[in-house]
Amino acid sequence: MADDALVIFMPAGRRGRFPLGTPLLQAARSLGVDIDSVCGGRGICGRCQVSLAEGEFAKHGIVSLSANLSALGEVEERYARRKPLAAGRRLSCSTLILGDVVIDVPEESQVHRQVVRKAVEAVTIELDAAVRLHYVEVREPDMHAPASDLRRLMEALECEWGLAGLACDLDIVQSLQAALRQGEWKVTVAVHDESTIIAVWPGFHEKAYGVAVDVGSTTIAAHLCDLSSGEVVASVGRMNPQIRFGEDLMSRVSYIMMNPGSEGELTAAVRGAINELAAEAAAAAGITAADILDASFVGNPVMHHLLLGINPVELGGAPFALATDSATTLRARDLGLALHPGARAFILPCVAGHVGADTAGVILAERPDTSDKLTVLVDVGTNAEIVLGNRDRLLACSSPTGPAFEGAQISCGQRAAPGAVERVRIDRESLEPRFKVIGCALWSDEPGFAAATQRTGITGICGSGIIEALAEMFLAGIIRRDGTIDGALAARNPRIHADGPTFAYTLHAGAVTLRITQNDVRAIQLAKAALQAGIRLLMDRMGVAEVERIRLAGAFGSHIDVKYATVLGMLPDCDLAEVSSAGNAAGTGARIALLDRRARRTIESLVRRVEKVETAVEPKFQAHFVEAMAIPHRTAPYPHLARVVDLPAAEPAGETRGRGGRRARLRAGERG
Amino acid sequence: MADDALVIFMPAGRRGRFPLGTPLLQAARSLGVDIDSVCGGRGICGRCQVSLAEGEFAKHGIVSLSANLSALGEVEERYARRKPLAAGRRLSCSTLILGDVVIDVPEESQVHRQVVRKAVEAVTIELDAAVRLHYVEVREPDMHAPASDLRRLMEALECEWGLAGLACDLDIVQSLQAALRQGEWKVTVAVHDESTIIAVWPGFHEKAYGVAVDVGSTTIAAHLCDLSSGEVVASVGRMNPQIRFGEDLMSRVSYIMMNPGSEGELTAAVRGAINELAAEAAAAAGITAADILDASFVGNPVMHHLLLGINPVELGGAPFALATDSATTLRARDLGLALHPGARAFILPCVAGHVGADTAGVILAERPDTSDKLTVLVDVGTNAEIVLGNRDRLLACSSPTGPAFEGAQISCGQRAAPGAVERVRIDRESLEPRFKVIGCALWSDEPGFAAATQRTGITGICGSGIIEALAEMFLAGIIRRDGTIDGALAARNPRIHADGPTFAYTLHAGAVTLRITQNDVRAIQLAKAALQAGIRLLMDRMGVAEVERIRLAGAFGSHIDVKYATVLGMLPDCDLAEVSSAGNAAGTGARIALLDRRARRTIESLVRRVEKVETAVEPKFQAHFVEAMAIPHRTAPYPHLARVVDLPAAEPAGETRGRGGRRARLRAGERG
Repeated sequence: MADDALVIFMPAGRRGRFPLGTPLLQAARSLGVDIDSVCGGRGICGRCQVSLAEGEFAKHGIVSLSANLSALGEVEERYARRKPLAAGRRLSCSTLILGDVVIDVPEESQVHRQVVRKAVEAVTIELDAAVRLHYVEVREPDMHAPASDLRRLMEALECEWGLAGLACDLDIVQSLQAALRQGEWKVTVAVHDESTIIAVWPGFHEKAYGVAVDVGSTTIAAHLCDLSSGEVVASVGRMNPQIRFGEDLMSRVSYIMMNPGSEGELTAAVRGAINELAAEAAAAAGITAADILDASFVGNPVMHHLLLGINPVELGGAPFALATDSATTLRARDLGLALHPGARAFILPCVAGHVGADTAGVILAERPDTSDKLTVLVDVGTNAEIVLGNRDRLLACSSPTGPAFEGAQISCGQRAAPGAVERVRIDRESLEPRFKVIGCALWSDEPGFAAATQRTGITGICGSGIIEALAEMFLAGIIRRDGTIDGALAARNPRIHADGPTFAYTLHAGAVTLRITQNDVRAIQLAKAALQAGIRLLMDRMGVAEVERIRLAGAFGSHIDVKYATVLGMLPDCDLAEVSSAGNAAGTGARIALLDRRARRTIESLVRRVEKVETAVEPKFQAHFVEAMAIPHRTAPYPHLARVVDLPAAEPAGETRGRGGRRARLRAGERG
Repeated sequence: MADDALVIFMPAGRRGRFPLGTPLLQAARSLGVDIDSVCGGRGICGRCQVSLAEGEFAKHGIVSLSANLSALGEVEERYARRKPLAAGRRLSCSTLILGDVVIDVPEESQVHRQVVRKAVEAVTIELDAAVRLHYVEVREPDMHAPASDLRRLMEALECEWGLAGLACDLDIVQSLQAALRQGEWKVTVAVHDESTIIAVWPGFHEKAYGVAVDVGSTTIAAHLCDLSSGEVVASVGRMNPQIRFGEDLMSRVSYIMMNPGSEGELTAAVRGAINELAAEAAAAAGITAADILDASFVGNPVMHHLLLGINPVELGGAPFALATDSATTLRARDLGLALHPGARAFILPCVAGHVGADTAGVILAERPDTSDKLTVLVDVGTNAEIVLGNRDRLLACSSPTGPAFEGAQISCGQRAAPGAVERVRIDRESLEPRFKVIGCALWSDEPGFAAATQRTGITGICGSGIIEALAEMFLAGIIRRDGTIDGALAARNPRIHADGPTFAYTLHAGAVTLRITQNDVRAIQLAKAALQAGIRLLMDRMGVAEVERIRLAGAFGSHIDVKYATVLGMLPDCDLAEVSSAGNAAGTGARIALLDRRARRTIESLVRRVEKVETAVEPKFQAHFVEAMAIPHRTAPYPHLARVVDLPAAEPAGETRGRGGRRARLRAGERG
């Protein structure tokens, strides 16, 4: 028997020989086959599913047998207990090659399956771009006053534009003579930050573009801006290709910990994606990447470090030390970016080990320091970054909400996409639901709904849908304040039914049955308790019992109904007219930094003013967390909310403690 | 008959096939065979001589016939009329391949035949190195005050060393975490110019070196200095490998003009040589090139531009525009230098198109601006750079002396090396000479001289020797004030004898006969007239008739007897006690810039204060030149000199004009 085996991945058709015992995922990667991986190959995410193509493939000279793969092992069985593993599907990370096989990679297992476009928020930005073009006429060389070409160029820049004491990149010094003579002593120069000549063109040149990049863990979005008008000329986005090293940040950090030296791969992946986005945006705007002279970046601390080529493993454990938290200005080519050779890059500063340059972007977009109103800024992702403050004081922390708000960890959860339930109402008497799905304007009880949703189907519940479902279940009394689904209601409506030792609520029974289980409620409770606990921790530190304004940043914040988020107790009580979405505030912050040079100094000094609170070492966080497990909260009053919503009366205190409080503490203990 | 032929170069043994008609030199270069070339392949320098190895070389499968090379052509015949071309020798630049040949490359035709070591001058330099090491203890990361590693390092540098607001190279940010943890929160950082962190080492590190480099057209010298003591720990030198593109600057510029794009080759050649010197100096000092953290450079404008990677062709013709004349600070790696990755480089500023960073180095070493005495600084090379001034005012120009002072263009001239005549005395009555040669302490009329010189022989006259020979001939009346050798004296001593239509003086008759011909005198007259005319032009501009001090920089200035230089009229009259050598002042200037950070700002502002005079467009220069053809000068008095030397009486004015003046004007016209 041979020591290695032939493996062919379809539909790519890539093939190679591998030692027996090699995991399929590893073989696929070494061949450059595009297979998603989310958990770093630990059999948890289920994104790397493949199936065996059984039979004789004469054309390829291979007989592909199921016996040529390792049997379903403990890892896959553990996965299958949590999530359905369709017949014939295998986790490629946990399946070993034992002989020749042909492997099918389904579309949903491919990384590049989705291109996400983040809309650009409409904000007013004062235009003061760091890179500006200056057209000058330079006096010709004169033997009687032998100043160099560069010196005469500097004279012209000082005389015509008031720019004195400039530095000049070496490559510009090297190319200056040719440009001056080709332009017959008329040139256009690009000056960065009124301090350095970074580009020169013969004659008149008017193209000056910059790109603002929001490097998210999941999505990277780039907005190409005309630096002279401030106008966004193209916006493009794509999945962060680092996803193949792990879906969430800590999976990626774990991957690097387990594969020392691999941080360079993650850096190359994100830089490569940025280059592709820059080229794509340039093409969409009818320019080239070489017309891009400046770039700005926001991202969480791990993305920030990987973009800069810094190993992020220190961010994976206490004390969560950043290598640098300063704003960084450098040459874009030092980041491996293929823009104009002289292009600069500005990376916004980080606030702390868990509060990154993305939060700096939110602060810059929202400027809570300019308001008298005590404001909470929340950017919900896998972690929630929270800023509390006003013109007197700013506090920030990060709270580990986990991915439940994004539909993960929810039995019928899915990303926001056509077919996903996004709005839910439940009749208080009949306990019957009605809902809306993405891609259809009708409610489910309106005529024509079935026909209108036939194409997309009704496939799952997205983040905003689960918030509404749970809040409506609470308002209808199906969920008690402690989060338990009240099985006694099964008598009133069979949608409430036993589900093992607990109960569930069937939202929809169709091709896919959508149930809200007790575990789903618990997952959201844990997430919302973490979020509210973070906010309460900052309120404590600030010495306030109420906030005056709440701004929700990020895609999640754009889609949820703030009333339901408040009902569920994600947020503290607040006048609902003062609770609103801030849109993609981090990206907006990047755009502001790109277009407004002074904003770069502003955010650097603002971030230094922010008082950081580390939830992981704050004993009060656990206490707040336990209190916040109740819906909307065990002790905090919600008078503003009560004015617009009929909140169920509190159960007797003993019952709540006896049934929910202990469990909440237990859960909290598990997380600590 | 084949279209190409096999050529083998010995002793290297390199071989290749070349189209018939290819010049041998071109074939040699394409094979990387080390053949000198000085004039850029124009058949003038004779440095590229080779010879045919005739016969059958069975081992190589080749029959090498003289018929397989082109016959002696006009270029070689013209060369042979000027200089002897030994039997069998060919100029490889002018000899075409017509069939298979084996070619011998004699040692003296190889570029890398000589390693020159420039002695380091003893000067007092105030030590204030631009790169300094700072050992710090950094507080450990603290979740309750989450400042980044870099920020805490900065805090320590500010607290312990008073260094505030530092920048930090990206690669240091990338490596900082590891260094801090490896050093257990104790690190040594290198800070450049109190502004930027350029290196970091775990724990205590004390090696900090810098290298001062004098990039001459002929020789490159590097002095490795301990930045903490200022001590020179190694000095090394070598020929500038650019010599293979042309010996003098203008040959190299011509080469680039004729071969567009080739400037990169010359840049690579000089940078490669600097890397070799740095490694060699480091090895000599027991360190590695990675311990070198700073470098400083001086060089004439063409060397300055080529080092920086700037095309120097604009310097080859009016208006001689420099690309940049500013002092330049950059990362050494941007110059392709393999020092410490964070090492910096400082290139001294240029003064004007003909007055380079080498002159800036001389000014920095001599600081004429600090003296009340009106001083002339002269750096004699192929051009003479002249600075005139004192604390009130500084003037500078460059004068085209040509290479005669270096022994070129002199029939029996040679470089300063053992066997070369360097001192000459001629008896005023008998007209008999005595002399000394390099490598022997005895005069030629002392007992034991013949035995002592047997090994080296008496092979030629070096630059200082020719100055003394001509000055003594003048003082003995053999040469008249107009420069003609007085044939009437043949009656008194047969050493004076007819030489075609003119006369010559035989200094020595031996294995090699050393004669001073009329052409030799003319060559020195042209050179010295150019030098004195440049000085006079600056004196005119300054409005003075006398100078108080003369300093001669460079190797030439170190070896000549200032009395004879004055007798010959190279220099204006001056108290001889105030005429002295400044040693290798340009190199000293580089060392000062390396070791004294403040000197960098000083020289940048000093150079900008210098008033530049362009001899090429100054009508008075020609007039001064003609006047200065006479020995010592046609009109200027030499009272200081007359006090120590019996100068011959001036001939009747009519005779001088009739015989020498006209010829001098003619020569001057030829040069313009």
